[in-house]
Amino acid sequence: MRALVYHGANHRAWEEKPQPALRKPTDAIIRISKTTICGTDLHIMKGDLPKVVDGLTLGHEGVGVVVEAGAAVTNFKPGDRVVISCVTSCGKCPECKRGMPSHCADGGWILGYLIDGTQAEFVRIPHADGSLHHIPADVTDEEPLVMVSDILPTGFECGVLNGCIKPGDTVAIIGAGPVGLSTLLTAQFYAPAVIIMVDLDENRLEVAKTFGATHTVTTNAAAKIMKLTGGKGVDVAIEAVGLPATFQICQDIVAAGGHLANIGVHGRSVELHLESLWDRNLTLTTRLVDTVTIPLLMKTVRSGKVKPAQLITHRFPLNEIMKAYDVFGNAARERALKVILTN
Amino acid sequence: MRALVYHGANHRAWEEKPQPALRKPTDAIIRISKTTICGTDLHIMKGDLPKVVDGLTLGHEGVGVVVEAGAAVTNFKPGDRVVISCVTSCGKCPECKRGMPSHCADGGWILGYLIDGTQAEFVRIPHADGSLHHIPADVTDEEPLVMVSDILPTGFECGVLNGCIKPGDTVAIIGAGPVGLSTLLTAQFYAPAVIIMVDLDENRLEVAKTFGATHTVTTNAAAKIMKLTGGKGVDVAIEAVGLPATFQICQDIVAAGGHLANIGVHGRSVELHLESLWDRNLTLTTRLVDTVTIPLLMKTVRSGKVKPAQLITHRFPLNEIMKAYDVFGNAARERALKVILTN
Amino acid sequence: MRALVYHGANHRAWEEKPQPALRKPTDAIIRISKTTICGTDLHIMKGDLPKVVDGLTLGHEGVGVVVEAGAAVTNFKPGDRVVISCVTSCGKCPECKRGMPSHCADGGWILGYLIDGTQAEFVRIPHADGSLHHIPADVTDEEPLVMVSDILPTGFECGVLNGCIKPGDTVAIIGAGPVGLSTLLTAQFYAPAVIIMVDLDENRLEVAKTFGATHTVTTNAAAKIMKLTGGKGVDVAIEAVGLPATFQICQDIVAAGGHLANIGVHGRSVELHLESLWDRNLTLTTRLVDTVTIPLLMKTVRSGKVKPAQLITHRFPLNEIMKAYDVFGNAARERALKVILTN
Amino acid sequence: MRALVYHGANHRAWEEKPQPALRKPTDAIIRISKTTICGTDLHIMKGDLPKVVDGLTLGHEGVGVVVEAGAAVTNFKPGDRVVISCVTSCGKCPECKRGMPSHCADGGWILGYLIDGTQAEFVRIPHADGSLHHIPADVTDEEPLVMVSDILPTGFECGVLNGCIKPGDTVAIIGAGPVGLSTLLTAQFYAPAVIIMVDLDENRLEVAKTFGATHTVTTNAAAKIMKLTGGKGVDVAIEAVGLPATFQICQDIVAAGGHLANIGVHGRSVELHLESLWDRNLTLTTRLVDTVTIPLLMKTVRSGKVKPAQLITHRFPLNEIMKAYDVFGNAARERALKVILTN
Repeated sequence: MRALVYHGANHRAWEEKPQPALRKPTDAIIRISKTTICGTDLHIMKGDLPKVVDGLTLGHEGVGVVVEAGAAVTNFKPGDRVVISCVTSCGKCPECKRGMPSHCADGGWILGYLIDGTQAEFVRIPHADGSLHHIPADVTDEEPLVMVSDILPTGFECGVLNGCIKPGDTVAIIGAGPVGLSTLLTAQFYAPAVIIMVDLDENRLEVAKTFGATHTVTTNAAAKIMKLTGGKGVDVAIEAVGLPATFQICQDIVAAGGHLANIGVHGRSVELHLESLWDRNLTLTTRLVDTVTIPLLMKTVRSGKVKPAQLITHRFPLNEIMKAYDVFGNAARERALKVILTN
Repeated sequence: MRALVYHGANHRAWEEKPQPALRKPTDAIIRISKTTICGTDLHIMKGDLPKVVDGLTLGHEGVGVVVEAGAAVTNFKPGDRVVISCVTSCGKCPECKRGMPSHCADGGWILGYLIDGTQAEFVRIPHADGSLHHIPADVTDEEPLVMVSDILPTGFECGVLNGCIKPGDTVAIIGAGPVGLSTLLTAQFYAPAVIIMVDLDENRLEVAKTFGATHTVTTNAAAKIMKLTGGKGVDVAIEAVGLPATFQICQDIVAAGGHLANIGVHGRSVELHLESLWDRNLTLTTRLVDTVTIPLLMKTVRSGKVKPAQLITHRFPLNEIMKAYDVFGNAARERALKVILTN
Repeated sequence: MRALVYHGANHRAWEEKPQPALRKPTDAIIRISKTTICGTDLHIMKGDLPKVVDGLTLGHEGVGVVVEAGAAVTNFKPGDRVVISCVTSCGKCPECKRGMPSHCADGGWILGYLIDGTQAEFVRIPHADGSLHHIPADVTDEEPLVMVSDILPTGFECGVLNGCIKPGDTVAIIGAGPVGLSTLLTAQFYAPAVIIMVDLDENRLEVAKTFGATHTVTTNAAAKIMKLTGGKGVDVAIEAVGLPATFQICQDIVAAGGHLANIGVHGRSVELHLESLWDRNLTLTTRLVDTVTIPLLMKTVRSGKVKPAQLITHRFPLNEIMKAYDVFGNAARERALKVILTN
Repeated sequence: MRALVYHGANHRAWEEKPQPALRKPTDAIIRISKTTICGTDLHIMKGDLPKVVDGLTLGHEGVGVVVEAGAAVTNFKPGDRVVISCVTSCGKCPECKRGMPSHCADGGWILGYLIDGTQAEFVRIPHADGSLHHIPADVTDEEPLVMVSDILPTGFECGVLNGCIKPGDTVAIIGAGPVGLSTLLTAQFYAPAVIIMVDLDENRLEVAKTFGATHTVTTNAAAKIMKLTGGKGVDVAIEAVGLPATFQICQDIVAAGGHLANIGVHGRSVELHLESLWDRNLTLTTRLVDTVTIPLLMKTVRSGKVKPAQLITHRFPLNEIMKAYDVFGNAARERALKVILTN
């Protein structure tokens, strides 16, 4: 089969590899129907994640069809259409049992990171019963479900749930990339009154408005948001970038008793202003997505409460994934959000 | 009457002042029976809190007897024995209505900070109905109730409740001063399996053991705690000092999915290691005590579930408060925790 | 002034009464702009609530303008436009402090029940600071805000919040009267996937569909809902009628681990089938509305997240309230939901 | 091997049966070290549970040693000492994933009910990874851990957690049998101020006092408890009997805003007084134990926060289980709580 293979920083190839086979009775083999590229894949390509070895197939998102299931797999059988979770969950360790499979003792985020991933014609999924999700028979459009692998639960769990958004709240989301926009879409499950979207890319802010943002802000964000909120600040500030400067905005705008939910992947430490925050009754959270809300999100997608197809801007056949990486790598210029690859 | 009055950094006096009078119909005048000195009072004396003006009476803790109540006060009448909350609550503003009177629009922490406090023979309490609490008739020993004004709810709300301590948890409390020890006492409401107390003062750690700490640690705390927990870290790390170094210990020892509850008053920013914490599913909280748990705490004190008298090490008549400050200011040498002043 | 006065079962009159005056410093006098009639008022007219005395002015909903405020009222001044909560809250008693003013020691539901109510040109509101809510300057259409006095928080607090509705849930609401429809409107704050509305009145079910119900059911409701849910039952069953038969439907349809939220006012006991429910991990709740969510609801109304004007079917001048009672008393025939009376 | 076998109502025998063997790769075979008899076993013996077939081995509690583990079992290996959960959990179905394995699609309570149980020399445990729990190496006394199979999590989950006991609360537990006493023991994890124990058996109430009950009541319980609470009622009422009369006591004594947590197994319906409870802001819960708190409880047992050995009154060799049933079946006369059987 063919796969998108990492060969060290800045080197990738669409090349022939052996089709994956079952290794454990809890494995399943999936024929990929649709996959996509994540911002994290670009980080890997830059060499930022040294655990990724030469020869690894990238990708941790996708939908497909089960072609083979191990003897201990009971929830799935060949022919089943499935969404692949970006997080592998054994279902047996203390972390899985407490609903935190992001830190699963034999899983977590490993796909396209520590083991071969989904940007290929076939993929092996360990702990299939805990890591795959059935596509209901009446859902025929599989494309939007690729968003359910990672980006939608990431925005929802790390941003919306951890931020404790309530009806009537004032929310600011810093970063209008795919993750920030997923947060924007799923934030609306809780009927906030005001959603302020912050980004330097005017195009993305235009998109955000069509997705339900009530306000958009580019430069000088903290001052503008404080003015907009009458000096009170926002109930919930969500960091969806991963830089000290954007984290600083969140600290500057969060109201007393408010929530600061970090989603961004940070490469270095930030300055936390406890000298002014110690008495502000702040709740600050970090989270690697657990994808425990995939069943819930499937119901909201199926019922039309959220339309993740809005995030799709480009489509390619899977064998043009090298080109797709180029487009996605120039997201601002290409006005790219999520790129769908069809096998 | 006589009061302990601030006269600029490092200058205080026990001197004559006019007895306070009602200013608003929601005020009450309390004759102080017992009061105490807080670590924050020492900060004020060092000149660290510039909002404190020359001439102010210090003190925000105490029990006493109502001598006069304004026309709009309905919960209290002259002769009632009361605990004074360190936080003034109007009960009418949005913050009070949401249970966060620490940020009350016409209150919060003002006693002995922005208005004359409790280290005096009499004190005026604004919004008496929201800021005083009845002492039950069958509670005759008022001394331990001085701890209910501030130190017990501070440890309980900012540390224990914000840290979400559960039965069976492993907890570390950094700092075995009066606030850390109050946290230790009230943490035991939730039956944690392990409570590790960290301090450089061996005497305080000895005290902590008698208060229920299962382990104590002095130097090299992070490494020792990681070893003690088999490399997993603690479920709850509580910062009760207010320094970058102690906050750093908390970051180093908190387990994935854990809580870091800050109680300490910080004078400068800290480095938050988001580069390693972004994916650790951490919840970090800050809080100025709201004292909304005073009714709950009164029940636990009354029923003997917590014995705050354990925190009392020294006793003076109120007119020897100048000496009491000296003792409390040399807490390590004097082995002082809380100092009771009786009027 | 004129008021709608109760004169024993089935006797009411629109008659002259003395204009109310301040009795306590915490009172305010409101000139009513808009009021309405509640199903509970019809119960009173039938003589079902024996505590209501001859001569009492009915009504517990309304918006108006402050004409006089007692000396201890600090949040409101003459000229302020306000929404009147149906629940009076002193803000000082233990129940108010714990966020349950429905059981306020000096309040709760008393308006138009134990003291003169809002179906009059003027009304005295005790504990004005806790019982009135400002209308924002930019909200010029006051009519929909009459729904915020009672019916919207009743559906939201007793039904939606107590029922713990989550995104993706399957919800059934039994009863499509004004309260059931308010529940339907506010349920959508939480993005449930399926909302099944049950009533015998086809007209009301038609209305429910336009309000967002995904399914409607008339007779044989339990069997139909079990079929609709594949035998699993609903996540949340909400009783908005107050009869044994409708409560029975809720028991029959609630899934294992589900919620049964009672809103209905019941006149007699019901049979609870613990022999089949004891092992179903059920949560059953009852609640008299606390109206603590009025600030939240005001934000959702103001931002257009909910449009309570949808509930208004009839309008009369206040002096035609006798006729309005006749129309509202024949709600099915008149296709009446909420009737607005303008002073 | 030998086992305690059900042969229709009122007929049981300690007889030879084939030793169980693995049937699925997720099974494990356990050699029983200690087991016990549950009140439910007596119900089965009376013929109250018609799903129990002639020939079934009874028992759903026990500790033992793994003698064989299926190919798909990864958490356990032969020689491991384990506690057996009374609830079998597949870890893969929606109910297990939401933390409600009591309703597991391929498990739940089946041991000694639908499949052969633990009152035998050996037992087959399906879904071993989800249904067994390691005994820490430093815990050498296995006897108290038999309580962790069922009775301790039943009291804790169905009573204490569902009842939302808080520090300072007033709690009433109706029924001082083994389940009620387990509730009493684990209730103290949350430092309630008052725990009132209700039973007609004076001996059990004496035991309850030594276990931490602050008050005991026999006849005329509701009136006495209302007097004791100054007419306010209890914050939490826990039903641990399973009869209409005891459920009625709970309704009579629960305060406004309180919790009524049902643990009892009910054989018939009860009358729920919604005519007086509809406006009382009551939360009523039912629950079949999920045993999801076994890891937490193991930590509290290991650390001495709870001492379940207190519940053990009698000990027999396993081959005297027929006699043990006689003793346990006359619990009042024999002053029996839990009976340990050692293999």
